Parts: sequence; C-alpha cells; structure tokens
Amino acid sequence: MSFNTFGRVFRFTTWGESHGPAIGAVVDGCPPGLALTEADIQPFLDKRKPGTSKFTTQRREPDEVRILSGVFEGKTTGTPISLMIENQDQRSKDYSEVAKAYRPGHADYAYDAKYGFRDYRGGGRSSARETASRVAAGAVARLVIPDVDIFAYVSEIGGDAIDPARFDAGEIGNNPFFCPDAEAALRWEKLLDDARRDGSSLGAVVECIASGVPAGWGAPLYAKLDSELAAAMMSINAVKGVEIGDGFAAARLRGEENADPMRPGENGPAFLANHAGGIAGGISTGQPVKVRVAFKPTSSILIPVETVTRTGEASDIITKGRHDPCVGIRGVPVVEAMMALVLADQKLLDRAQCGRDRLA
Amino acid sequence: MSFNTFGRVFRFTTWGESHGPAIGAVVDGCPPGLALTEADIQPFLDKRKPGTSKFTTQRREPDEVRILSGVFEGKTTGTPISLMIENQDQRSKDYSEVAKAYRPGHADYAYDAKYGFRDYRGGGRSSARETASRVAAGAVARLVIPDVDIFAYVSEIGGDAIDPARFDAGEIGNNPFFCPDAEAALRWEKLLDDARRDGSSLGAVVECIASGVPAGWGAPLYAKLDSELAAAMMSINAVKGVEIGDGFAAARLRGEENADPMRPGENGPAFLANHAGGIAGGISTGQPVKVRVAFKPTSSILIPVETVTRTGEASDIITKGRHDPCVGIRGVPVVEAMMALVLADQKLLDRAQCGRDRLA
Amino acid sequence: MSFNTFGRVFRFTTWGESHGPAIGAVVDGCPPGLALTEADIQPFLDKRKPGTSKFTTQRREPDEVRILSGVFEGKTTGTPISLMIENQDQRSKDYSEVAKAYRPGHADYAYDAKYGFRDYRGGGRSSARETASRVAAGAVARLVIPDVDIFAYVSEIGGDAIDPARFDAGEIGNNPFFCPDAEAALRWEKLLDDARRDGSSLGAVVECIASGVPAGWGAPLYAKLDSELAAAMMSINAVKGVEIGDGFAAARLRGEENADPMRPGENGPAFLANHAGGIAGGISTGQPVKVRVAFKPTSSILIPVETVTRTGEASDIITKGRHDPCVGIRGVPVVEAMMALVLADQKLLDRAQCGRDRLA
Amino acid sequence: MSFNTFGRVFRFTTWGESHGPAIGAVVDGCPPGLALTEADIQPFLDKRKPGTSKFTTQRREPDEVRILSGVFEGKTTGTPISLMIENQDQRSKDYSEVAKAYRPGHADYAYDAKYGFRDYRGGGRSSARETASRVAAGAVARLVIPDVDIFAYVSEIGGDAIDPARFDAGEIGNNPFFCPDAEAALRWEKLLDDARRDGSSLGAVVECIASGVPAGWGAPLYAKLDSELAAAMMSINAVKGVEIGDGFAAARLRGEENADPMRPGENGPAFLANHAGGIAGGISTGQPVKVRVAFKPTSSILIPVETVTRTGEASDIITKGRHDPCVGIRGVPVVEAMMALVLADQKLLDRAQCGRDRLA
Repeated sequence: MSFNTFGRVFRFTTWGESHGPAIGAVVDGCPPGLALTEADIQPFLDKRKPGTSKFTTQRREPDEVRILSGVFEGKTTGTPISLMIENQDQRSKDYSEVAKAYRPGHADYAYDAKYGFRDYRGGGRSSARETASRVAAGAVARLVIPDVDIFAYVSEIGGDAIDPARFDAGEIGNNPFFCPDAEAALRWEKLLDDARRDGSSLGAVVECIASGVPAGWGAPLYAKLDSELAAAMMSINAVKGVEIGDGFAAARLRGEENADPMRPGENGPAFLANHAGGIAGGISTGQPVKVRVAFKPTSSILIPVETVTRTGEASDIITKGRHDPCVGIRGVPVVEAMMALVLADQKLLDRAQCGRDRLA
Repeated sequence: MSFNTFGRVFRFTTWGESHGPAIGAVVDGCPPGLALTEADIQPFLDKRKPGTSKFTTQRREPDEVRILSGVFEGKTTGTPISLMIENQDQRSKDYSEVAKAYRPGHADYAYDAKYGFRDYRGGGRSSARETASRVAAGAVARLVIPDVDIFAYVSEIGGDAIDPARFDAGEIGNNPFFCPDAEAALRWEKLLDDARRDGSSLGAVVECIASGVPAGWGAPLYAKLDSELAAAMMSINAVKGVEIGDGFAAARLRGEENADPMRPGENGPAFLANHAGGIAGGISTGQPVKVRVAFKPTSSILIPVETVTRTGEASDIITKGRHDPCVGIRGVPVVEAMMALVLADQKLLDRAQCGRDRLA
Repeated sequence: MSFNTFGRVFRFTTWGESHGPAIGAVVDGCPPGLALTEADIQPFLDKRKPGTSKFTTQRREPDEVRILSGVFEGKTTGTPISLMIENQDQRSKDYSEVAKAYRPGHADYAYDAKYGFRDYRGGGRSSARETASRVAAGAVARLVIPDVDIFAYVSEIGGDAIDPARFDAGEIGNNPFFCPDAEAALRWEKLLDDARRDGSSLGAVVECIASGVPAGWGAPLYAKLDSELAAAMMSINAVKGVEIGDGFAAARLRGEENADPMRPGENGPAFLANHAGGIAGGISTGQPVKVRVAFKPTSSILIPVETVTRTGEASDIITKGRHDPCVGIRGVPVVEAMMALVLADQKLLDRAQCGRDRLA
Repeated sequence: MSFNTFGRVFRFTTWGESHGPAIGAVVDGCPPGLALTEADIQPFLDKRKPGTSKFTTQRREPDEVRILSGVFEGKTTGTPISLMIENQDQRSKDYSEVAKAYRPGHADYAYDAKYGFRDYRGGGRSSARETASRVAAGAVARLVIPDVDIFAYVSEIGGDAIDPARFDAGEIGNNPFFCPDAEAALRWEKLLDDARRDGSSLGAVVECIASGVPAGWGAPLYAKLDSELAAAMMSINAVKGVEIGDGFAAARLRGEENADPMRPGENGPAFLANHAGGIAGGISTGQPVKVRVAFKPTSSILIPVETVTRTGEASDIITKGRHDPCVGIRGVPVVEAMMALVLADQKLLDRAQCGRDRLA
C-alpha cells in the first residue's frame, strides 16, 4: 500500500519520480482568499535547488513551479492547488547496474520486495527529488500561518557540531551549509572536501525552530503536535532520528532540571526555560517549537560495498552519478517545509474544534 | 481538535480519563476468525499495571479488561472490538491545587489554553493511565502478526546505560526495570531510591526490537513504516525523542560505515549489519526493526517549581500523589504495544495493495 | 474490511452486537464547553426505543445511556465522549435455525461470504439495534448546531402517502407512526394490522428537514453536503434510496421548472422555491435542507421464503421473533440523528477552512 | 473546507477548474504490476468528450490524457499515478454577467457564501468539466477489477422512460443518448430538439450495472458498499437521487415480494430475484450490483430566471454559452467511473482484512 497524502484538513499529495517527466503536489484544504503566485513559492525551491554549490549534486534543475489550479485573480479559491515542476536534467545515463544490483542503504531491495518491481532510474519514487514537491507545498502552508516564523539550520556535520556560543542566525545564508557558526562552516568545508575526495559521505543534524506559534495547537492523543512533527520529519529521505526540545538529553536530566518553570507574563505564563521544545501534552505552549532531525550519510558513495543482485548473486557496488556528499544540507528547506505543513494543519484543526482565534 | 484514533486499516480509538468511571479502546479493522479472549490481553496489562514495585506509582488498579463486542464463540468476527477497563482507585483526594495552578512539564496549561477548561483530576485525559487502553489494543494487534516477536527493555535510566556486552534478554523479567543487564539493574535500584528520597525523578531510554517482520511492510511516502513508528512512539506520554536503527549516531558515521552490506542469503539477501534498523525507504527489509525512545523524567516531583495560577499569579508547586519516579519503566509495555499496532496495520495495508503473502 | 467510524472532524465510532452485553459509541472531535448530561441524550433514545407500541418490536430495552468519558462538571472537555447502552433483553432463544440457514433480505449470507463466520444472534452486528448508538451520538451532535432545527416524519407506508395538504407537524407526536397527517395515520394503523396478521411487513418513506442551516456548509467535491447525507442515510439498515430536494422528480422537470429563483432578501437572497433541497454544488444555500429516504419492508417475516443452508441445501425459512412490521417507523429518529451528525461535522469543517462564523 | 479525495485504500484526488490551464487526478494506492498506458484511459474519456453530437455542449476539447508518474516500462509501480488533461477550448468570452449575478440552480451563490469568492469562469471548480478527471481515474480502477463488467445507460429523459421489454444492450452505442431502447432513442431526439429550441433543458435517469462482483465486498457499517456508492453518485454534478436495486419502489412492496429467494447454486446460493441490487447488509451478494441515479435538468438555460446580483439587486438571468441540454447523458461514463472507483477500493479493502481471494 502507498499513502502519498499528508495532513488532516490542510492536506497535500505528492506524485512523481526522479526521472519521470515531472513531479508535483496537490494542496487541498487551503483557506480561500490568500494571495498566491508562483513567486511566493519559487524562493523556497531555489533554496533547495540542486547544483548551487560543489557540496550538492550537480544535477541541473531550474525547479520552476507552475500553479495549475486553485488560484483565481491572484488569490486562493479554497479549491485544490495543483503545483507542477518539470524534470529537465534526467540524464540518459546507463542504469543497468542499479537495475541489476541493490545499492545498500537505498530503498532498492525494499521496493523490489514490496512491489515486485521498481522504477530504478535515479531512485524513482524513493529519490529525494520528491522533496521539491514538499517544499512547494510548504510555501503554501506558510501563507496559512503568517504569524509564525520558521527557520532551520545545520547544527552538526560528520559529528562536528556548531558552538552554541557562536550561534548567529545571520550567518545561515552566508555559507553553503546553512550553518549559523562561521567557524564551523570553515571546518565543514574541509570535512566535506575530504569526504568527497574519498568518495565517501557525511551525516548531519538539522535543527528547526518555529516562533510565534500560539498556545493551543495540537490534536491529542493521536495527532499530537509532536507526534505529527515526528511523522513528518521521519518521512523525509535519510532521516533516522527526531527529537522535540531536549529530546534524548532530557532522558538524562532529573525532574527538577527538566521542568520549564513559569512566571506571570503578559499573555499567559512566561516560561523560564524550554526543555520541552514548546510542546506539552501534545499541545503547543506558546514557546518556540523546536525539533532536531538526524540525517544519515548519503548512501550513494564511490567506495565499493558488498551487495547482491536481483538474481541473488554476490556483487560489489559503487554508486556513480551526481549525489550530495551530505544530504542533510539540502534537508534544511525540507525540514522547514514539513514544519510549516504540520503547523498549518494544526492551526486549521484547532480552529475547527476550539475556534480559539474567535475568542481573541 | 482531538484525534483519538490511530491506524489506517487496523485502527483503534481510545477514550477515558484518569479519574472517570472507566477507560477503553475500540479496535476496528481486525481480521475475522482470530481466537481472542480476555486472557489473551490480561498478561500485557499486568505487565504495565501500577503498584507492582516500589518504583512505580502506588495507585492500585487491577486493570481487568472486558471484551464487550466483536468476539463470538471465542473468535473475532471482523466487527469492532470494544475493550473496557474500569477505574477503581480514583482516590478522592483534594485536587484544588492542581485545579488552580499549572504543573510545569504537565499538559495543564496547554489543555487550558486549547480547550479553555480541563478535567484536572489526575491529569484527566493527558494522564498516562490512557496507555492501558493502548496496551489492551496492542494485545489484539499481536494476534494479527503471529510470526513477529516483539520485545522492549530499558537501556538507560538517568543517563546510566546498560553494558551491551552484558545484554541478556532473559534478565528483563528478573527485575522491576525491564533491564537486560543484571548489574545495571542493581545500580538503577540505588539511583531510583535516591531520586525518590529527593522527591525527584529520572528519565529513561527504551529500546524495542521486532523480529520476524518480512521485507515489504511500509506505505511510502507518508505512511512509511519508520514515519508511522515515529508518530506512534512520540504520541506516548513523556516521550521526547525517537530513533530508528542507529538514529542520531548514524549522523556521525561515514557512508561506508553506515552501509548495511548484503550477501546472498537463503530468502533474499543476508545483511551483514543493521544500522538502518530494518527499514529502508520506509519499507521493512526483513531485518529486525529497531526503535529507541527517550522518556523525560516524570514531571510530578516533590521539589517545588515556580509556576503561575490560572488567574495569573506567581506560585510554587509540588506535585504530591502517587507517581512513578521514572515513567519510562512502565513505558516498556506501551512501546511494545505501539510497535505491534503499527506493524499489524502495515501488514494489512501491504496485503491490500500488494498481496505479497499470496505469492509465498 | 470494516469501517465503523463516520465523520471527518466530528467523528463517531460505534461498536456492539444485538445480543452482546452492550452497545456504544465513541464521539471524537466534539468542541469543549458544551453542557452535556445523560438527560440530553435519553429523550432521543426513548423516541427510538423498542416496545413502545404494538407496531414495533416487543423486545424490552430501557436503552439507558451512560456517559463514560469526555464530560467534566457537566461540560464536554473536547476529549472523546464514550457512550454505553447495556443490552438487557437478549432473549436466550434458540438461534439454531438462523445459524444454519440464510434469511433472504438479511445480511446473513453476505456476512458469511465476507467474514467466513458471523454472530447470528439477532443479526449480530448487522442488527438495527446498532442504530441506538447513532441516536445517542446524534444527540451530542445536536449540541454542536444549536441553531439548526431537525425533524423527520414518515410520509408513506406500504405505498400509501400522506396528503401534503393535511401536513401538520403537530400531529407527528400524536400517533405511533411519526405521521404528520392524522387521516393517513388512521389508514396506516389498519394497513399495519393487516400486514402483521398476514405475517408480512411494509416499507416506508421518511422525510427529514433541517432548518436554520446557514449558507456555506459542505466540502466539495468529495465531501459535498449532499454526498455526505447520501452516505449517512444509505448506511442505515434497510435503506435503499436517498433523494435530496425533489430527487427523482427533478429528473422529470424542465430546467425552468426546476430552477429556484431568487429575489433580494434580508440576509442574502430569498429563494422562491426549494427544488434543490437547500443544497447547490454540494454546499448549503441557507434554505431548509431536505432529504427523503426509502426503507424496504422488514425482511423478517412469518411467510416462508425459499433459501439455502450454510451447507448448501434447499430450505424454506420463516423468521420468528420480535420484529418491527415496518422498520421505517423507528427509522425516523435514526434519520434525524444522521442528519445532525453530518451537519455538525460540516459546520466544524467549514469553520476549519473558511471560518465564516468569525466574519458575522 | 474542501475534500477533493475519494476512497479509502484505492484513492484519487482531482484538481482543476473549467477554464484553468488543465485538470487532473492523482490516483494513489493502485496495486503494482498492472499494464497501463494512455490508450487504456483514452476510450473512456472519448465516451464522455463534449462536442460529439448536437445534444452535448459544443465546447471542443480533445481531452487527451497524459500519465506523468506511477508507470514504468508500461506497468504501474504502486506509486501515485498523476493524470493530466489540458484545457484547450476555454473560450475567452465575457463572464461579467456570471461574475455579477447568481445563476439559479448553479453553485454560484453557495460558493460565494462559503468561500467569499469564486472562479466564475465556466463554473470554475463546480463545473462538470471536473468529471473528466473522474473518468480518467475510473479507467485505472477498472484494471484493478478485471473480472467485473460495468455498463450504464440512460433509462429516462424528461420523464419518458425506456420500455424494459425493448431493452437491448447492443443499442446503447447506436445513439447519442446511451439508450438501450431504439424506439425511445427516436422519441428522445425529438424531446431534446424541442427543449433546445425552447432554450430549456431536461433531466434524466441513469442506471448502472456491475456484473462479476463476488460476494463479500463492502465495509460495514460506515463504508458499506451501498453507502459508498450513494456518496460517489451523489457527488456527481446535477445528481439529486440515488437508488440501490429497487430503491423507492421497494418501499411499496410487502416483505415477501421484496425478498430475494435463494436456491442451491454452483458457487454459493443462486438468487431467484434481485430486488436488493446485489447488496445486503452493505456487502455484495454476488448478484449484479444495480444503481439508479437521477440527474436534474441542466441549470444553464436560455429562459430568463429571476435572481439577485452579488450586491443584492434583483435581476433576470439567462445563461448563454455552450451547455448540454441534458447533462444526464454525458453522466453515463461518469457513473460508470464512480462505480469502478468504489468497487476497486472495496476489493482492496476486503483483501486487507479478509483476504478472501487467497482462499479461492
């Protein structure tokens, strides 16, 4: 079974393969009357676009989005918004090796086991190319939550973390790694150059913060805000871990250390700490929502790995082609998009039942 | 908005508050013809039951489950299975303090912010008591996946981890901590005694392994097996992090270290490692499925924490009552239940579209 | 596969069999803060209750509902509302004949074909007893739409229709048929007496009108208000047809006859006719929403019908027991409940996306 | 709120407006390995295509479908199938009148009331042009149920019904009305010519029969086969009534007349009648599944009707343009498509829980 739709009332469905004619998303449940043109979406796609530095895949895709429905005279109509991105640089390379043998760490064997068959060109549906559709949909989601500010950055590559003392959000755009620590960025350049030279790859940790989320979003018990975020982030290619707030570190604190004390504030309580990452009982508290996401190293490497063929013979495989040496880097806009998509959905869900915004 | 249903075709809905007359679950989509009586469910509830050692809450609940529908002559009929557990030890204590002030780390403020109002008796709907319903539903799920073996254990309490070299699954039932390392269990006893004496609490890490999952379960892209597991685990009270396979540690490996090489095996490939935790591209690979879950320390502690009242005044609060000093311990059967529930759902989903079991 | 949940954001799940210990419903997604006690639900159950006249089954069920969760201090909390009704008059009769042979018109054969197995006591899950759960859930739904007035009545029994000129809503409660035409009620008494004496049964048509529905409810294209109503009504036992507004009669009108002309009104257009039954393009227009529902004659009759046994032998069957000679009569409160449940869901859905009520 | 997805495990989502650049559907949950090319879809679109006779709209649309994803080397891969149809004959006419005033019988006022705003060009999203997407999706659904034969026909136009004695399935393709009675077709030609000359329109009744459906499909209680069919049919533009089997006529039969007696047959019971339309208890019985659908007369007519403008002034409106004088005629392939879509979904649902096909 496939399920290519995400969300409860603000929903999106993605379609498309890495080397098909196009990819896209249908966004359904978007409120009417929001100003929307391609220009509102394109900057987010450009941020994710391949080929922008030597540290990302050299595939050349303009990733230009077209809006095919759901917008009239520059405004959303409340009907489905169809977004399409044509694939242009599907290189007509020889995929016979990938067709024959399973690349370890890739979905090759699992797709064959499930579907009996797979589109092996560039990973087909399991390719990270699909995340462009999420980024496009995420740009629409941001319009639904205009008071929320979302940004993500890479906090760690290959085990080398940023120094929180040097955190500077202004630096994120100054280097090809979305790194908020200028010194770490310099080190990572060397790390990644070395990895690329070795034909290897590195993992990364991405952190995402959403400010301006009011208290009250989240749909307990089985659509809790943190549960939805965990599902959203874990659905991204190469992600192996998700933390809310302090995450695993919270498991090492004592109760009194992990508490987020409150003092009277202007609009509800003022919190003195945010170990919880802005979520309690699955509902936002009004503090910044914080998520950390672990990306494994890119599975496509030039170092031979033992594998088997479709017909069950032993083989060694190296994955030539155009790959990101650290797939986590381009994960940054994808993580941001998933955050926006979850929050937009939760905002509308909350309005459905609680209508708290009417009470303001 | 509330969403108290989990699952796609094997679904369960839970209801009930900590201090209401009863709690329960309705399991829908269970295949017909499975042998089921209360005796198939009770052992799992007993494993989670409070009051079994001094390291869990002293609330006395027999947690006896009744099957109210969906079973005829000892077999499931394919219709909804209604499970009910009566609450018996809802102590008629004075909740006026909890009603008035927000306990930090608890859902109190968030529920008030969302619903304008909350059942404050014992945490109401946000109480971990709800997890008994999940455990009951999980016992039914296990019947759907008889070839899968699921077990979980505590691997770390208060930052003190087991020694993998001393791992012995046989030890898990020999101590009140579900600890597979006898020496660690001794240390944890002291750790928890100290924490209790201080009126404090500790966090924990729970690991869960499912063996016997065939290759091919998982519904990409937005109901990937790992995405569903992340949602399931993060929906458990006090959980702040989820890892699949190596999780965050994978982000510190190089591509060739993180690869799971394959050699020809008897039924499909034989994997030489399992960094991926048995899931690739959101689909099971046939290796054991591995999940790690971080539980924060219990928020109910006897050490005063700064807070505010519902009317906005500063206050200090201590949470008296009957609480687990380490809520992660009793999380073990809950994590197992959620694993079973996700796998049962994915098995049926897979059968819907792919019907691979027919090809065997 | 079974699907025992209805609704998108205001959802209910029913469970229970005719002769199990109890039946019930879990209502999820109900807004918080609504005053709710058992006394708000009981009158609707009493209206549907069996044994109130000689024209309904003589099974004696008090149908007393208990609220097990979701209400605190007399108000809904926004968490799941668990409703339970104990079965009391499950007569310990001999079901061996029903177990052995398929009753024509009943679900016996179809359930066996699907599930390989069925709870044959009183029809099990396929019994109209389940509709008590719907009526209970519907009473909760009415609280969500306090400005909407819903009422239904029987307009036709055994082909004998009321005279629209004698329609008097005040008569509906004055006879055991929910008949708004006092003369027709007298005729129906004779008709049903005759049918009962013959061991036969009669069909009926039920009409339902909801006034006070504002323009704008409905979720096109695949959760249109009329589409949801059709699904809701057709899911009721014994229903074989659903019409919105003029229904099939509209297919015999010309375009200009079927138009609902408009003139300027106080709040939006004033319609000069309502052929459309208050719905255009799947969205309410502000006119009364009108639905007609056809109930087939009760399948349980004392006249022998040819059938086969489970083992494939020819047989004749008569269905003894306690049955309604015209199941459509007690369908009236069920149709009303389904109308309320659909409208409550659509109101919340509309609020999620459009929030029109905020603009008032 | 909008909901543009239909189905549970075999799902489709449609998008697009009458006068936007394109319309389309994303089909998700389709099993892998089915042979599929555009040529499998095109004949069904051609059957629905406008402009094929003087009795349908003169809009010229080639309605050529493109498959953008989900198919590799001529077979479905189990991933989403994106289908796109470009709009070509969006005539650049003057829509100012439709923009200003509400056309009675159309969705104009309801959309404005809901969304505050609408795409008025050719009806926008509420146009029957959307049904082309359903027909394309339905062609894919047919591949999932190769043993089921589906056909529909018009049984009545403007109140003039076919004579069952003259029913000849071979005639359906011989006239522009999908009429199985050659004499009725001649009468309808005259009827429709008259209506067109008058600037009026006529309603129609469409009947659809699916043979080869095995006993056991249907997901009680809230996704019963008849309930899903009712929702599917009522979601089609201009539909106002749905009947299963005898429908409203069953309400006029006595119990013994309406029974479908059974005799021993080769594979399960042989039914001696089919009043039930092949469905009992919401589950297929193995008999042909029969649905009747009422289409109202086209609302776009040249006869002036009283209406109001957006600004609340009285006006008279005639709807010029290219319209079907009887929208029910082109409803035939749409009804067939919805039948196929529901049955494909129910087949996969049934396989998920019951897996009866494995027992064959």
